[in-house]
Amino acid sequence: MGVKDQGSKKLLPGGRRGFLKAAALGAAAAAGSAAFPAPAIAQGRREWGLVTTWPKHFPGFGSGAELLADLITKGSDGRLTVSVYGAGELYSAREAMDAVLAGEVEMGHGAPHFWGDKVPATWFLASMPFGLTSEEMNAWFHFGGGQALADEVYRQLGCKFFPAGNTGMQMGGWFKKELKGAGGYKGLSIRAAGLGAAVMTAAGAKVASLGAGEIAPALAAGKIKAATWSGPDGDLALGLQEHAKIYHYPGWQEPATCLDNFINLKAWEQLPDDLKAVVRGANAAVNQMVLSEVTARNYAALATLKAEHKVVVKKFPDALLNRVGKLSGEVLNEFARRDKLSRKVLDAILEFRKGAVGWSNISDRAYQSARNLPFAYAKPSPKK
Amino acid sequence: MGVKDQGSKKLLPGGRRGFLKAAALGAAAAAGSAAFPAPAIAQGRREWGLVTTWPKHFPGFGSGAELLADLITKGSDGRLTVSVYGAGELYSAREAMDAVLAGEVEMGHGAPHFWGDKVPATWFLASMPFGLTSEEMNAWFHFGGGQALADEVYRQLGCKFFPAGNTGMQMGGWFKKELKGAGGYKGLSIRAAGLGAAVMTAAGAKVASLGAGEIAPALAAGKIKAATWSGPDGDLALGLQEHAKIYHYPGWQEPATCLDNFINLKAWEQLPDDLKAVVRGANAAVNQMVLSEVTARNYAALATLKAEHKVVVKKFPDALLNRVGKLSGEVLNEFARRDKLSRKVLDAILEFRKGAVGWSNISDRAYQSARNLPFAYAKPSPKK
Repeated sequence: MGVKDQGSKKLLPGGRRGFLKAAALGAAAAAGSAAFPAPAIAQGRREWGLVTTWPKHFPGFGSGAELLADLITKGSDGRLTVSVYGAGELYSAREAMDAVLAGEVEMGHGAPHFWGDKVPATWFLASMPFGLTSEEMNAWFHFGGGQALADEVYRQLGCKFFPAGNTGMQMGGWFKKELKGAGGYKGLSIRAAGLGAAVMTAAGAKVASLGAGEIAPALAAGKIKAATWSGPDGDLALGLQEHAKIYHYPGWQEPATCLDNFINLKAWEQLPDDLKAVVRGANAAVNQMVLSEVTARNYAALATLKAEHKVVVKKFPDALLNRVGKLSGEVLNEFARRDKLSRKVLDAILEFRKGAVGWSNISDRAYQSARNLPFAYAKPSPKK
Repeated sequence: MGVKDQGSKKLLPGGRRGFLKAAALGAAAAAGSAAFPAPAIAQGRREWGLVTTWPKHFPGFGSGAELLADLITKGSDGRLTVSVYGAGELYSAREAMDAVLAGEVEMGHGAPHFWGDKVPATWFLASMPFGLTSEEMNAWFHFGGGQALADEVYRQLGCKFFPAGNTGMQMGGWFKKELKGAGGYKGLSIRAAGLGAAVMTAAGAKVASLGAGEIAPALAAGKIKAATWSGPDGDLALGLQEHAKIYHYPGWQEPATCLDNFINLKAWEQLPDDLKAVVRGANAAVNQMVLSEVTARNYAALATLKAEHKVVVKKFPDALLNRVGKLSGEVLNEFARRDKLSRKVLDAILEFRKGAVGWSNISDRAYQSARNLPFAYAKPSPKK
């Protein structure tokens, strides 16, 4: 996954504040009213804007932002009203953070690595090649010290951070030809993003940086021979299955990508405690709901890809996984050399990962193998 | 896991209402005030009781109930104040549902199978042997039709239902002797609960039904030779490692036990929409947080069990897993014969499970194998 830029309006002087003020004045004039309402906050009621890095109703992600706004607005009984602006409505995806930092809107919804050029430690908060799964990452954020560290990272951006959704496991991507042997990435032109792209480059791939809408055309034209984007549901939406038929797994490069809710730090600090509790609770809910929606949609999408598009779902060879596993460690260390905070975050995740892998090996991993043993299990009743 | 009864106070005439009223009168009298406040609801402010089936601060579960109350109370800015009563404070664990149905408290926190004797379909909502993982179960509840079905089941109890936490994978249990071969459960006296206990009985085990505090003493006295309770953290708290050293995995009998927030249906229906949104959001948050807390605590507990208690962590033989897998299917079908709603719920879960297993095999399962390949990965910096 990568930052998806759907448009590129420049931040306007006056920004959303100007835009909204003009709209409100227009509406008041149209209604024939001379009385302009007192500032909302003076009545103990706040109005916030939430700018997203995805289109307004994008499945899972966009609906997560809508749910966040809805839970805050309804839950606070209107004391804090949040309006969602999808990517391209007021700001492009790439402008989302700047709009929040400038105070033109109060909060945004994206993913930590979108801000890697501003604060490098955000790279490690999104998803790490061969790193934590979504369940493990949530355990780290909430009960492993991750929230405090992530807040330290986002303070450098001028924001408060909440984990606000997760993609769960992604796929390894689409390939015109099956990757064989340890050196499969060597010389391959592939669209990829984030830390995974850096690992593929280290493995000899020629990585193309393309936005969401550019991937399918590049595959169709043969400019790239492979592409990673997300999981079955997100990939199906982009139509990648039309131009490459080998669908490799597992998605070692992005095992669980965290979404972020970033809030202008001053706006956050000015919230009274009860509204802080509302925002905190809404984010914990959205964090769960986005993962659940993407997970459920992936089941259906995977079935569609196999049945209707004759996609060949194929595991990466172990030799290749072993190779990129080693390279992942090297790339992570390299990125962590950029600054002390990056190393601090990486160290904390690696420490937590030891316990996570130990437990998952005897819990989820062992269980998921056991339920695939050849025994006959219960079946749904025949449909009438 | 099973219903944990910490005490057995009978429901008193007047119940909590009487108790609280007396306490309030006492406090008012003590303060020298003659004015007794008008009923809270008349001022648009409600006061609810939340009765739990676990001790007040029990890690993960009890803290989940506290968080639920806190998110609702703070988030609603006191429009709905929720007070938590731990098991044994006003009611025992087994009395929790009756207290809610009688309207003595408005909501409770437990697990669906605790109410299996009242409404059999609840068995399938808790955890099914060889059924869904926590992530899959959440996807089913929120985006697979599960919430609507669970509401149908809980309406038979007179309650509104929310999933409000999950244990994640449990362990297979504690054994004085390693289980070998397909017939390991035959003749074994073991403490177990729920559908898993029924499967073990079908496999020839002599199942003992014991409450939390009774398990370690029974193991110590040799009355039972094995016991299942929960995962590493919960098991460590009960001290089971003192009396049996073989710790088998995976916990096929309870792959992910859902906790429930059950709300008196009339109380729920009388809530205004904004407070319904608060309760809904708080539950989604708690559902996530309980799993995260239990997961993080399991890492530490597993390390303690191995390092300090010399526990032998050992996989069940595949032949045994294959046998209980087949028996699980038979037992599920048998339970589903009890009533139409049970069959309807089982059918829905089995249908969803097909997509879940298909996706998990190429996502989480494949990934968790891949990250255990022998490659050298990044390591935390040496501690200074």
